[in-house]
Amino acid sequence: MSVVNNIEDGEIDIVIGALHSDLRPFMSAWKSIFSRYHLIIVKDPDLKDDLQIPEGLSFKIDIYTKSHIDKVVGSSTSIAFSGYSCKYFGFLVSRKKYIVSIDDDCVPVKDADSFLIDPVAQHLRNLATPATPFFFNTLYDPYRNGADFVRGYPFSLRSGITCALSCGLWLNLADLDAPTQALKPEKRNSRYVDAVMTVPARVMMPISGINIAFNRELVGPALCPALRLTGEGKVRWETMEDIWSGMCVKVVCDHLGLGVKSGLPYVWRNDRGDAIESLKKEWEGVKLMEEVVPWFQSMVLSRTATKAEDCVAEMAKRVKEQLGGSDPGFGRAAEAMMDWVELWKKVGSGPSPV
Amino acid sequence: MSVVNNIEDGEIDIVIGALHSDLRPFMSAWKSIFSRYHLIIVKDPDLKDDLQIPEGLSFKIDIYTKSHIDKVVGSSTSIAFSGYSCKYFGFLVSRKKYIVSIDDDCVPVKDADSFLIDPVAQHLRNLATPATPFFFNTLYDPYRNGADFVRGYPFSLRSGITCALSCGLWLNLADLDAPTQALKPEKRNSRYVDAVMTVPARVMMPISGINIAFNRELVGPALCPALRLTGEGKVRWETMEDIWSGMCVKVVCDHLGLGVKSGLPYVWRNDRGDAIESLKKEWEGVKLMEEVVPWFQSMVLSRTATKAEDCVAEMAKRVKEQLGGSDPGFGRAAEAMMDWVELWKKVGSGPSPV
Repeated sequence: MSVVNNIEDGEIDIVIGALHSDLRPFMSAWKSIFSRYHLIIVKDPDLKDDLQIPEGLSFKIDIYTKSHIDKVVGSSTSIAFSGYSCKYFGFLVSRKKYIVSIDDDCVPVKDADSFLIDPVAQHLRNLATPATPFFFNTLYDPYRNGADFVRGYPFSLRSGITCALSCGLWLNLADLDAPTQALKPEKRNSRYVDAVMTVPARVMMPISGINIAFNRELVGPALCPALRLTGEGKVRWETMEDIWSGMCVKVVCDHLGLGVKSGLPYVWRNDRGDAIESLKKEWEGVKLMEEVVPWFQSMVLSRTATKAEDCVAEMAKRVKEQLGGSDPGFGRAAEAMMDWVELWKKVGSGPSPV
Repeated sequence: MSVVNNIEDGEIDIVIGALHSDLRPFMSAWKSIFSRYHLIIVKDPDLKDDLQIPEGLSFKIDIYTKSHIDKVVGSSTSIAFSGYSCKYFGFLVSRKKYIVSIDDDCVPVKDADSFLIDPVAQHLRNLATPATPFFFNTLYDPYRNGADFVRGYPFSLRSGITCALSCGLWLNLADLDAPTQALKPEKRNSRYVDAVMTVPARVMMPISGINIAFNRELVGPALCPALRLTGEGKVRWETMEDIWSGMCVKVVCDHLGLGVKSGLPYVWRNDRGDAIESLKKEWEGVKLMEEVVPWFQSMVLSRTATKAEDCVAEMAKRVKEQLGGSDPGFGRAAEAMMDWVELWKKVGSGPSPV
């Protein structure tokens, strides 16, 4: 069995939420990178057509559809596993220690010599090396090859803590919101910043779900499909589920003494959707973030919350009590978080549910 | 008059502390970049030989030596303006809004086409555009050309706050401490990370004085020569003055609602000194940082401290009371900070003292 960064291939699931029925271009672009791993593909339950996957692939793929979701989750839940949220079903049914999850409109980036850069290896490197959230290192992640701690960095903080979440970035179509992308329709991200860094403790950030990896054993329950915008569709800039879930997981990491890294690896995002069309819908995201960010920033969880599921349950309760009155979306998010914790306890561990 | 980033050339002083008597290679390397600005060169009072500066330079330089320092500061102060601390005298006598200060063992970096990259212009760009310390932006400084705020970034935080300090980085010889450089004598930094970022509020960092720029009107008094190691010499890795001063200025910025950026511009640091020789001295820096970092991290200044000098005076008092007992170096640092605030009030503003 092959091992990268002291992580065995068998400890990893690649989870893909399929929002397109024709996955052939996606799978073809990723084939050489994904072939050593086990894949979980979750088909968006709203997607009518059959999934198209290249034939003759030598690697193991498990595909989950609406019928699997219904069987495992049942109809008694407030969680909607549709759209981008379908990938969370993959997080739930995985039994691996690490999950790497990449949107189906992304392809790997090539280096200057046209060789593919392997984002999975970079994510695993981020997760396998310590995070340093208690003091800022000006030369970025000191655990990268060639980097180090700079003068003045306290020696007692140099061993760092376990990194539980690795947030990658995007070239070409950046992850902007609908108003920004509509205002600047030609805007593309072309800057490849060759850095990884630990996001400091107690600093909140907008975690994008486009290109992430995490330690499922430590923080799996904190990546939950909870917040849905009323007018949300099937393009990223209309959604907020990952931003909400990202603030939950950042609070959980800070509370449990785990780290979050941001930066490399990049993926290339292909164009999709019409931002100006999206903007015709009212984008509630702007309004919600104004309320949500200071709320998450001031969150201090109880000492008795010692596992990710405890933390999410406690946050769900507070969302209901403290935010529920200001917007019905928060009430629904609280309910989904509670249902998610229950679901995780029931089917998120133990023998495979499907 | 030439204007870059809405900052006029006449608003800037380049301050150089001369630790070498032969400044000809340094001045020659920087000539095309520095020629439009006014320079302040402060000669290390311990330096015996006369300064050698290229003749026929067309730009304005004011040179300060021990006699100027004695005249302005007198003998009644606890501050030693020797070694790297000589540059602080330049900060004091400047009357400009912005200061750019670069160590005399650094030269500009060339790009792939062998053109000089202008670090002064990049520092001014960092200072002239807002800082965003209250929420992390995954695509780094959103005010750089080509960058933007990502999905989920609260709109109310997008206008940002004034950036008061720009901390640049180093290629070739990185700014490591004596133990690290001695352990890895061949280690050099070759990674050019094409990024600027705001260091989040309430996050402490090891600010290096090698390559910085700041708004003197806003935070000038907070950059103070205070902490001297007993065995310190004339190489950076034996010193801590900038790290101490850097934590002071970061606390002041957080308190006053000002931002600090880190990243570009890089300078090329030439080799100097023998790290293994340095390590034969006892390096107190390791021990001091263990105590100092949590102390600065928990600092909350009074609401009545509304200017940088108030903040420094308050911190000086606390250093004396809270740290003074544990190491005599802290007691001396407290005294130097108090003297610095007095000195700044007396000669740091108004008509030029020399």
